[in-house]
Amino acid sequence: MDMHLLTRELIAKNSSKIVMLVADGLGGLPMRPGGKTELETALTPNLDALAMRGVQGASIPVKPGIAPGSGPGHLALFGYDPLVYRIGRGALEATGIGFELQDGDVAIRCNFCTLDAEGKISDRRAGRIGSEESAPIAIGLRAIRIPGVEIFVEPVKEHRFVVVFRGEGLGGDVDDTDPQATGVFPLEPQAKNASSEKTAKIAAEFLRAARLLLQGEKKANFLTMRGFAAKPALPSYDEVYGLRAAAIAVYPMYKGLARLVGMEIVGNAQSLSEQVDLLQRVWNDYDFFFLHYKYTDSTGEDGNFDEKVQRIEQLDAVIARIEQLAPQCLIITGDHSTPSYLKSHSWHPVPTLLVSDCCRPDGHRSFSESTCITGGLGHFEAKYLMLMALANVGRLNKFGA
Amino acid sequence: MDMHLLTRELIAKNSSKIVMLVADGLGGLPMRPGGKTELETALTPNLDALAMRGVQGASIPVKPGIAPGSGPGHLALFGYDPLVYRIGRGALEATGIGFELQDGDVAIRCNFCTLDAEGKISDRRAGRIGSEESAPIAIGLRAIRIPGVEIFVEPVKEHRFVVVFRGEGLGGDVDDTDPQATGVFPLEPQAKNASSEKTAKIAAEFLRAARLLLQGEKKANFLTMRGFAAKPALPSYDEVYGLRAAAIAVYPMYKGLARLVGMEIVGNAQSLSEQVDLLQRVWNDYDFFFLHYKYTDSTGEDGNFDEKVQRIEQLDAVIARIEQLAPQCLIITGDHSTPSYLKSHSWHPVPTLLVSDCCRPDGHRSFSESTCITGGLGHFEAKYLMLMALANVGRLNKFGA
Repeated sequence: MDMHLLTRELIAKNSSKIVMLVADGLGGLPMRPGGKTELETALTPNLDALAMRGVQGASIPVKPGIAPGSGPGHLALFGYDPLVYRIGRGALEATGIGFELQDGDVAIRCNFCTLDAEGKISDRRAGRIGSEESAPIAIGLRAIRIPGVEIFVEPVKEHRFVVVFRGEGLGGDVDDTDPQATGVFPLEPQAKNASSEKTAKIAAEFLRAARLLLQGEKKANFLTMRGFAAKPALPSYDEVYGLRAAAIAVYPMYKGLARLVGMEIVGNAQSLSEQVDLLQRVWNDYDFFFLHYKYTDSTGEDGNFDEKVQRIEQLDAVIARIEQLAPQCLIITGDHSTPSYLKSHSWHPVPTLLVSDCCRPDGHRSFSESTCITGGLGHFEAKYLMLMALANVGRLNKFGA
Repeated sequence: MDMHLLTRELIAKNSSKIVMLVADGLGGLPMRPGGKTELETALTPNLDALAMRGVQGASIPVKPGIAPGSGPGHLALFGYDPLVYRIGRGALEATGIGFELQDGDVAIRCNFCTLDAEGKISDRRAGRIGSEESAPIAIGLRAIRIPGVEIFVEPVKEHRFVVVFRGEGLGGDVDDTDPQATGVFPLEPQAKNASSEKTAKIAAEFLRAARLLLQGEKKANFLTMRGFAAKPALPSYDEVYGLRAAAIAVYPMYKGLARLVGMEIVGNAQSLSEQVDLLQRVWNDYDFFFLHYKYTDSTGEDGNFDEKVQRIEQLDAVIARIEQLAPQCLIITGDHSTPSYLKSHSWHPVPTLLVSDCCRPDGHRSFSESTCITGGLGHFEAKYLMLMALANVGRLNKFGA
């Protein structure tokens, strides 16, 4: 059952504040048998003090064993079932570079490729062309005009860029044009259903125009289109929770994900310290604050255990400033684990800590992978975290009489 | 949501090996307040050593409070939702005696019964006729011929036997002919839907022929049919997990259940030691190995606490030989609990242990009912165990970007 059917019915409003601090990829692993995880190694006096007052648990991002990407990981934390609300690859790529999708937009991940003299693909990634070289070529494609549709072209990185079509009646269900092989012709865009036929037709026109524009290029003389996706239809935080929500993030991807659920993007912080400055500044304007901290994930992805430990300690150091604002509910969690040992997102449950005046503390005196598994929140699917946050601040009425 | 929609989408292949050792009915109970369970009483140095390297949890076979039979218990361990995939009683009975059902077969549990002079049932179990007496009578029914259908008759035990119809267009939805009472006539087989009408007609013909053949018998002069069931349509391990799976079991029921999910039945071992011999022999030929150990269940069913303890110790003794093969993931679990105290299958969560190099050990130093409830796997539905197994060996790609 969609939990939003419950929250919509039970919404109560008050003046409480909720802060959700998401340390991306927070959970970890020991590097050797019998060792400690990154979070267990880090000196975290502030988190430990919170643990004594709070209740912790093991958050399962999607389902046991499933390692999520950033999209499903965050949707779950925001309380949107990640198996119901799927963000298409094109929409996620646009979101990741900060492109603000509007209702009805269709976003497409594109790859520059190289065609041989016959027009067959000789390199699916245009010789892994560098960003400096490819970005101007992508921007050159903005010259393409197709009646009845507005077209956006945004460079991403190396051979990758994003195209967005904006207009009436554009469905997002079109097959990829990348044949996933070299020595063959690129495919024509094919609509998967009637409501996407206009999109496929426009995509075909765009490809014809691009072929002419790019014919002088050595490497990037054509492109393939992959992961067509309409803007996902997500109800807003205001609709499902009655919350005015603010997102305070550094990276475009997380701002974009927050925007998809109707959060307002606040400021342009470049560091965690600046994020907390912003939090203080807009404290009176919102009910819910999503703070995103990237470096626990990126250091884990790099396999850099020691740096992940340091990044956790830096996170710990800002806790006191957040506490000074006295949120009625403070949550520290992650969207998934990123163990340095695996150098990738993983399925392991994420240590999650919730502090409120009525959270029923579980007696733990520290916060880690080892303690969370016997915490008072139990092992729970991340999509339930928002329900607990709302409950802890009195924003959910009783269910039934 | 069917987890196989996820696994099909996320399958990754590599050369890793998974061993799932199922100790049937593993979980137990103390015989008196304050006492220890069978698993806690047994000396299990090898399991305890595994516990130190592994992560454990409490596996809920179906849902809290539900004691499963062997069918749903194993389907859940294999990752098939036991509330979605139901194996009809006839199909399970046929499976249990090692009959290899084919697609389209309909299997029927039959009971010999006694009719009085009027043709009314005077004994629904033919005086609990002994197997030696009933088996030849069942085999005699193989003489029955019905055009357009192949008929198999297999003795089971005492008054019970199995009939399988093989042919075109046979549905499995036919009402029982057992009126569940004496002093009344047996019922005629009635199809529950149009696609089972042919089955009902053939069953009626079979019953007419059997009545003539059996009229000289004193006890078993007729039969009732119960639990008509088509072969269940289960996707294979290869389809849903990309795994070449081997089943190494002693008893026909467990071979049959494994066959239903597309595992190959390997060898004909008669003991756990021979099962491990086989495991060694076919190690290079498969990705996944299901080993079934019966005696933790049968001793529990007998209420023989001490013998169940011994059987657990015998299980512990083979662990080292399995470890020598260095599977990337080793799982010890059970399909349900069978406490000697209850002499039956029970609903209690099953101690489950998973060992891999990235399993995030939970610090437990032994493996039991008491430790598993605070293990790192938490309390989880058994149907999620395969997801965790696949994740721990790198056989599931990331979900979403």
